[in-house]
Amino acid sequence: MTPQRASELKKEYEEDLFERVIPFWERHSLDREQGGYFSCLERDGTVFDTDKFAWMQGREVWGFSRLCTLYGERMPERRPAWLDAARLGAQFLRAHGRAPNGDWYFALDRAGKPLVEPYNIFSDCFISLGLAEYFRASGEQWALDTALATYRRIGERLPRPKGAWTKQIGENRPLAAMALPMMQIWMAWELRGLLPESDAEHMIDENVDRIFRLHVDRELRTVFERVLPDGSHPESMDGRLLNPGHALEVLWFILRIAGERGDRRMIDDIVDIMLWCIERGWDEKYGGIFYYRDYRNFPTEKLESDMKLWWVHAEALCAFLLATRLTGSAEHERWFERIHEYTFARFPDREHGEWYGYLDRRGEVSQTLKGGKWKGFFHVPRALFTCIGWLSQMEGDHAAG
Amino acid sequence: MTPQRASELKKEYEEDLFERVIPFWERHSLDREQGGYFSCLERDGTVFDTDKFAWMQGREVWGFSRLCTLYGERMPERRPAWLDAARLGAQFLRAHGRAPNGDWYFALDRAGKPLVEPYNIFSDCFISLGLAEYFRASGEQWALDTALATYRRIGERLPRPKGAWTKQIGENRPLAAMALPMMQIWMAWELRGLLPESDAEHMIDENVDRIFRLHVDRELRTVFERVLPDGSHPESMDGRLLNPGHALEVLWFILRIAGERGDRRMIDDIVDIMLWCIERGWDEKYGGIFYYRDYRNFPTEKLESDMKLWWVHAEALCAFLLATRLTGSAEHERWFERIHEYTFARFPDREHGEWYGYLDRRGEVSQTLKGGKWKGFFHVPRALFTCIGWLSQMEGDHAAG
Repeated sequence: MTPQRASELKKEYEEDLFERVIPFWERHSLDREQGGYFSCLERDGTVFDTDKFAWMQGREVWGFSRLCTLYGERMPERRPAWLDAARLGAQFLRAHGRAPNGDWYFALDRAGKPLVEPYNIFSDCFISLGLAEYFRASGEQWALDTALATYRRIGERLPRPKGAWTKQIGENRPLAAMALPMMQIWMAWELRGLLPESDAEHMIDENVDRIFRLHVDRELRTVFERVLPDGSHPESMDGRLLNPGHALEVLWFILRIAGERGDRRMIDDIVDIMLWCIERGWDEKYGGIFYYRDYRNFPTEKLESDMKLWWVHAEALCAFLLATRLTGSAEHERWFERIHEYTFARFPDREHGEWYGYLDRRGEVSQTLKGGKWKGFFHVPRALFTCIGWLSQMEGDHAAG
Repeated sequence: MTPQRASELKKEYEEDLFERVIPFWERHSLDREQGGYFSCLERDGTVFDTDKFAWMQGREVWGFSRLCTLYGERMPERRPAWLDAARLGAQFLRAHGRAPNGDWYFALDRAGKPLVEPYNIFSDCFISLGLAEYFRASGEQWALDTALATYRRIGERLPRPKGAWTKQIGENRPLAAMALPMMQIWMAWELRGLLPESDAEHMIDENVDRIFRLHVDRELRTVFERVLPDGSHPESMDGRLLNPGHALEVLWFILRIAGERGDRRMIDDIVDIMLWCIERGWDEKYGGIFYYRDYRNFPTEKLESDMKLWWVHAEALCAFLLATRLTGSAEHERWFERIHEYTFARFPDREHGEWYGYLDRRGEVSQTLKGGKWKGFFHVPRALFTCIGWLSQMEGDHAAG
């Protein structure tokens, strides 16, 4: 990518992030009366449900805290509002979020009364990372203590993450999903400096190994979402499921680590695997990346398989931009530009701000919401500021060159 | 409806049922090697997953048994194959279906090893009805005993249907879904003659009362899917959810009872409520009935809300045909014809048999499967033979008139 193109993209991403994405959430999601965040927001920001979902609360605390740590020095005039927004969620979680055993409820009502039991370990993951980043932004010790206590509890729960709410009878088909190792790789990256370094490195190595040894099938040139303990995949809907967005997300997490370690062999390996994922996941007829696919092109059990989702495209942008930066591969740059063009032509709402979440297969808006139970202040800002960081370096290559 | 039109429709429905629907399942779903039924069937019948789902097993036992009891005398040459097909599922369930406590597992693998715990009470409902009908077809006493034991156990589980797997914290938002009263009304209808009559009548009256008192909101002219114990609906996604197919399904169950009782006031009331449902549920832009809607037209939490599903249209056909038959209302007949035209132009596959299950909003096939985890041998044959029965009577009105 030329430094000029990097500059141009950086400008476009910054404009989207600072003028359309962050203001949307600052304006519409902060519950100044009862604390925490509204995440169910219609196209224009109207709140259509006031329930508070743990994933969305934890992620938004993380997002606003990260804006403080990332841009606080460069934009001191905006920092207080971001810190204030982060505090709103952190304090709400602190006051209402935990069940008596310390695990985090999945959903609360507007006032903080629990609605759904703490069956979902990812609530705990997002809250742990949110509070850790909030500690970095605010210096409040309770936030670090709670983040680390939650992190330790996650470790204890890993062998049976859904606990009493487990429905799968694991001994008869012990499928393991990619979500947990992916999450742990991201957690280890995020908690560096707060955990003993050897813990973080061990967590990264163990889970990167699980991804490469089990989920990446080199013979079939495919990344499988769920695998048996020996890396095989039963001839069933769950065994054949592909989730290209998830695969690209975990691959860029690992690629970032490989880049930092300067591990050229690992870099080349990962960027190659990325191509398998995008080639299988791209919709040649209408463009965009499918949500789910079946390895043999059978139907999946997910009715929304054909849809084009915001987070899938946000993660794919990160994956192919980082691949381009680390390898200079023209093929990866072409994919990046193709995904960029598709994404920026359809997802960002230039009138009301933020991105649409759910397009149908043809790329038309299927759900007008900007936030819901599963879409909050997370993938879009994370992708934008992550890409902006890399684009800055790529634009700087100019000055250097 | 004119007797001529009834005749014409009857011929079309019989052709679909006997030449395209039943043969598809006879050909592709029977697992002669390991027992039970395959339900994951591609467009041409290819089995794409061999797991056996309790709902689908119980429903298919019911379907083939009902063919025996309904058409066995008129088509003695086909009865042995139907009974044989019913036995295949009944014996598989008998051998493998139950957990040690007697509740039915949600999913088994091809050989019958349990894969998913018995968290879902509807598995038990469909299996109880399947075995009861199998008893009627076969005279095998164990099937009746098991059906009734399951029925009693369902009664015990009703206060907390998901048992240990309950995630909702009911005391903070005690929403009740329409599915359970609907199921109980159908169960009471189906088990007549096998339960003490007073039990069945009581179960019908109690649940019809729940539907009318809680789910039907006369002020807002809307049937709500989930309600609080006082019939109110919180301003949340779950509180505002509408499921027009479900509403029409329960309404025709009740209408059939009202018709049998000759309760004219109840008949007039129900057919009026049906109009609210179809007017809200019909897609004026592309035709067909939406899967889900939000009472205030906000987004729902279901990504598949805009899709057009086979069972919704099958149930709507039953609802408006019965309404037409019992009231002669021209408005209901127009709706029936409109739904019929939409449905028969899109769902039946005249090449490979059976109906497609999942169309996108525009009415194009979105998933090519004919059966899956949630689609089996059930709504299509039930709607077809139920409508055929009513059409026979409507055609007979000619001879009488």
